[in-house]
Amino acid sequence: MTPTITAFADSPGRGRGLARDIRVRWALEEVGQPYGERLLSFDELKAPAHRAIQPFGQIPTWEEDGLVLFESGAIVLHIAGRHPGLLPGEAHARSRAICWMFAALDTVEPPIFERSLATVLERDEPWFAARLSVLDARVRQRLGELLRRLGNADWLDGDFSAGDLLMASVLARLEGSGLLGGYPNLAAYLLRGKARPAYQRAYAAQFAVFLRSRSAKDPAAN
Amino acid sequence: MTPTITAFADSPGRGRGLARDIRVRWALEEVGQPYGERLLSFDELKAPAHRAIQPFGQIPTWEEDGLVLFESGAIVLHIAGRHPGLLPGEAHARSRAICWMFAALDTVEPPIFERSLATVLERDEPWFAARLSVLDARVRQRLGELLRRLGNADWLDGDFSAGDLLMASVLARLEGSGLLGGYPNLAAYLLRGKARPAYQRAYAAQFAVFLRSRSAKDPAAN
Repeated sequence: MTPTITAFADSPGRGRGLARDIRVRWALEEVGQPYGERLLSFDELKAPAHRAIQPFGQIPTWEEDGLVLFESGAIVLHIAGRHPGLLPGEAHARSRAICWMFAALDTVEPPIFERSLATVLERDEPWFAARLSVLDARVRQRLGELLRRLGNADWLDGDFSAGDLLMASVLARLEGSGLLGGYPNLAAYLLRGKARPAYQRAYAAQFAVFLRSRSAKDPAAN
Repeated sequence: MTPTITAFADSPGRGRGLARDIRVRWALEEVGQPYGERLLSFDELKAPAHRAIQPFGQIPTWEEDGLVLFESGAIVLHIAGRHPGLLPGEAHARSRAICWMFAALDTVEPPIFERSLATVLERDEPWFAARLSVLDARVRQRLGELLRRLGNADWLDGDFSAGDLLMASVLARLEGSGLLGGYPNLAAYLLRGKARPAYQRAYAAQFAVFLRSRSAKDPAAN
């Protein structure tokens, strides 16, 4: 049975590939699993029908054969556990790759996400400059630590894994911030991830939704 | 081979059971797996020897039979995957329990952690009151959503699972904030988690470290 994911009908990300369904699309493309998509408006996201599937009113979700999941990390792990290609077969290496999935989401993403949130919600507050410099320092600390571990390697631990997929998708949030410029090996790591054909297909699929949404709002834009 | 975890020699949590090794200790106690502990000072946490194991200079870590892991979520999942008791055997229920692990760490914990961080780092800033009210609103949103899903159930999805273990450990960060008071079913859920004998043993083990550390600094305190 083909799984169905949910995504924003009208992405707030302006086509930059940051909405979290990109992670699930990317994982599905890496393993060659076709999928369907169900697009939700902001009103639909917060409506009871979607809350029954996703208690926090977010995307993406996963529906397949009676199984309903949410949380992009959980969905990527679910896909990686059922198809070869995203986790090593050897038990220790597999546990280490899963460790990088959690590191991406729980240690590297939070300060990056807080920084993004502040640039949207606190930009006009009198304290914005002071807060931003604290947030930048938190992000730089994690980038420095990640860089030291990555060194000159292509991926975090051996071959590309679901850990790299999530870490690259987290680092992508920093594009345009100028922060990655101080960490050329991390910028190259991100580009390496985004150059993968599976990422390209995932991005194209998400971008197609954005184009349709823009075209629906303003046919003259096309 | 007995696994070894790392923990703070001198916990900043003042014995309240919040340092993240509690999650790993709790999981180990739930499945009846003995373990050893290696305690690290703040200087040791940031030293190269520990960075080789934990690139971000944090606790807890996991060492067993040549395998090194970090990230409390990854370690709890590793334990849960190798022992009965923390994840259902049925495949769909197992995936849903893992989904709650990610929801605890990626959706519920970040605003709670940001709030804790702000109360420590921004308490004296002129903007603290304004920021705190924004942070409280973010936390309340997640608590309301979690409460709606939990309803009157004992646990989030059937029997107690690693998802409940992590969710309870995240909610414990709110004790003393007054925020849980508005969500009696969540407060009861947290108490139900903390009443488990495995949690009690885990807490006692972490608290014993705190008492030894306090006694070493001020023998008269005992």
